[in-house]
Amino acid sequence: MPELNQDQIWMLCAIELAQQGQYSTRPNPNVGCVIVKDGHVVGEGFHPQAGQPHAEVFALRQAGESARGATAYVTLEPCAHYGRTPPCAKGLVAAGVARVVVACPDPNPLVAGKGVNILRDAGIDVDLGICQEQAHALNVGFLKAMATGMPYVRLKIASSLDGRTAMASGESKWITGSQARQDVQHWRAISGAVITGVDTVLADDCQLNVRQLDTVADIEKIVQPKRVVLDRQGRLPLTAKILQDPTTLMVMGPFRQELADLGVLQLPVQPLKELLQQLVQQHQIYDVLVEAGATLSTAFLQEHLVDELISYVAPTLLGQTARSMFNAAFSQMAEQLRFKLHDVTQFGDDVRFRLIPSQETL
Amino acid sequence: MPELNQDQIWMLCAIELAQQGQYSTRPNPNVGCVIVKDGHVVGEGFHPQAGQPHAEVFALRQAGESARGATAYVTLEPCAHYGRTPPCAKGLVAAGVARVVVACPDPNPLVAGKGVNILRDAGIDVDLGICQEQAHALNVGFLKAMATGMPYVRLKIASSLDGRTAMASGESKWITGSQARQDVQHWRAISGAVITGVDTVLADDCQLNVRQLDTVADIEKIVQPKRVVLDRQGRLPLTAKILQDPTTLMVMGPFRQELADLGVLQLPVQPLKELLQQLVQQHQIYDVLVEAGATLSTAFLQEHLVDELISYVAPTLLGQTARSMFNAAFSQMAEQLRFKLHDVTQFGDDVRFRLIPSQETL
Repeated sequence: MPELNQDQIWMLCAIELAQQGQYSTRPNPNVGCVIVKDGHVVGEGFHPQAGQPHAEVFALRQAGESARGATAYVTLEPCAHYGRTPPCAKGLVAAGVARVVVACPDPNPLVAGKGVNILRDAGIDVDLGICQEQAHALNVGFLKAMATGMPYVRLKIASSLDGRTAMASGESKWITGSQARQDVQHWRAISGAVITGVDTVLADDCQLNVRQLDTVADIEKIVQPKRVVLDRQGRLPLTAKILQDPTTLMVMGPFRQELADLGVLQLPVQPLKELLQQLVQQHQIYDVLVEAGATLSTAFLQEHLVDELISYVAPTLLGQTARSMFNAAFSQMAEQLRFKLHDVTQFGDDVRFRLIPSQETL
Repeated sequence: MPELNQDQIWMLCAIELAQQGQYSTRPNPNVGCVIVKDGHVVGEGFHPQAGQPHAEVFALRQAGESARGATAYVTLEPCAHYGRTPPCAKGLVAAGVARVVVACPDPNPLVAGKGVNILRDAGIDVDLGICQEQAHALNVGFLKAMATGMPYVRLKIASSLDGRTAMASGESKWITGSQARQDVQHWRAISGAVITGVDTVLADDCQLNVRQLDTVADIEKIVQPKRVVLDRQGRLPLTAKILQDPTTLMVMGPFRQELADLGVLQLPVQPLKELLQQLVQQHQIYDVLVEAGATLSTAFLQEHLVDELISYVAPTLLGQTARSMFNAAFSQMAEQLRFKLHDVTQFGDDVRFRLIPSQETL
């Protein structure tokens, strides 16, 4: 690993601050800010929650008069628009900072480049792109959605070493261990929505909410992901546990008055790609986790809608009559779906692969 | 990791020395020896090859008069029998060492405990079991074979993430990448025999020999593993590439004069377990690598003959019509074959699992 320069070190501090909001800022992005003067931190902050001040506001408040002539490190381009809060770029100018270092330009059309322009017009030095990759990872869904109108889609699969998700009978508890299942809670908690199929709900009576996190994050403070059930035939029973919290439930299927009466948001039956676009455009859902059976998982994969495959592999063999994790019927190697290995991590006796499709997603 | 004491540090040096013989000592075990006096190494050695002197001989030669009053660290109990070389225990006594530290007791009935007794009878302090686990790993096959009459069996499988080894047509080149395939060379090179089925030979015309190693080991110096082809119907064609080196080939099948004429050793058709016992008892083969198709691999696994599963998983999905890596037909989760994860390592985009069966092997 190459040695870090001073700008990178401070930016990594700002990124670490931003991460403190990872479970609670949605639909807003995670942003961190560090203000440094004469080699010392004089102010720091992160965006904790939609409706609360931005990271720069907290950092400037803490810095007070010390901000004058200082350098501000911000993980995302400071905003230039009047939203729920006044524009941060103007705040930095007013505080008299001498230099602003930015990791990611903001792809939001309301902001793009405007924040930097306000700073430069005021005579402030601006450096862009420091630790951009790490800062991009903080807000991969938000940034993709702003740039393309599509969410960042993670597909989670848990299988045996021989690629099976259940016995032929459907029996599947448990293939992976408690540490791997706990890790899934993190991916749910950073998602705007968890998508599943009605068959999974019928089989497991799952709730797909976040119940426990490794970090100290107060489980009450996190923004629970919406649960989206794909139910083209309207088979979701009213007794399903997933209906216990109808305000975070969305069902794609034929309209049902009884669901409407419970307060469930219903979505029209549409192709998966259109569904994903609707989640971005109408519901500000930028990170999607798919936790479904093989049929729906295979559809997402074959339609090239998956940005990242999160595959938990348990050290067990279930045999050739057990259910396959991936239902495509390929006859030639040329048809295979190849991935790049992002990283591999052990969770107890299970192993998590994070995989990025080799071909471009649409 | 707990801090190492001085004995452990010197023993790890001896183990590192022993490893230098890992590809060349078969059927003899790997042994290393370090002689230490006043905190300095005065002699070191390892066993390089059957017929060459033992590790202690090299170390004592180098130490000369300095061995008197010194401590000798040996990874395996010094031998007490006259074989190709005089007993090392007597050599240590003659050299006047004051103390001997041993990692593994020798399970060979010709030696067991006798080496230590010779030393103690001569008034030498002996400590046993220092770094035994690491030293045991050096000679896992030798030690198992001496203790049980069965070899240590490693089963290698390369599959896709969804547990497939080839398309339905048999097309399979290549699922894993070059780094994973290179790693297989190591496992072949530490094995006394590589076992495969005739169907694999017919499909791939493979040779299953060692062609290249990562280390500087001279490929000419290594002991090539025997190749054992299971051919119950006598279908191995005389044109097969594997016959290019008939002296390291063994075929289990009906007797064929044309194979005998080529110098191929033929084994009677027998159950897998008896075959493995024969390899130990008649051929001094203590480490076996199985590289076979799903049918034979499944048989080894279901008969609980596998000590370690070496599974390479490539980040690709081949679909449910591709060939399964494991052919058992289990109907309940209770029948699954579970493993403990020994370690997981990345090779390029592929991942290697080393897995130990959870249930006792017979």
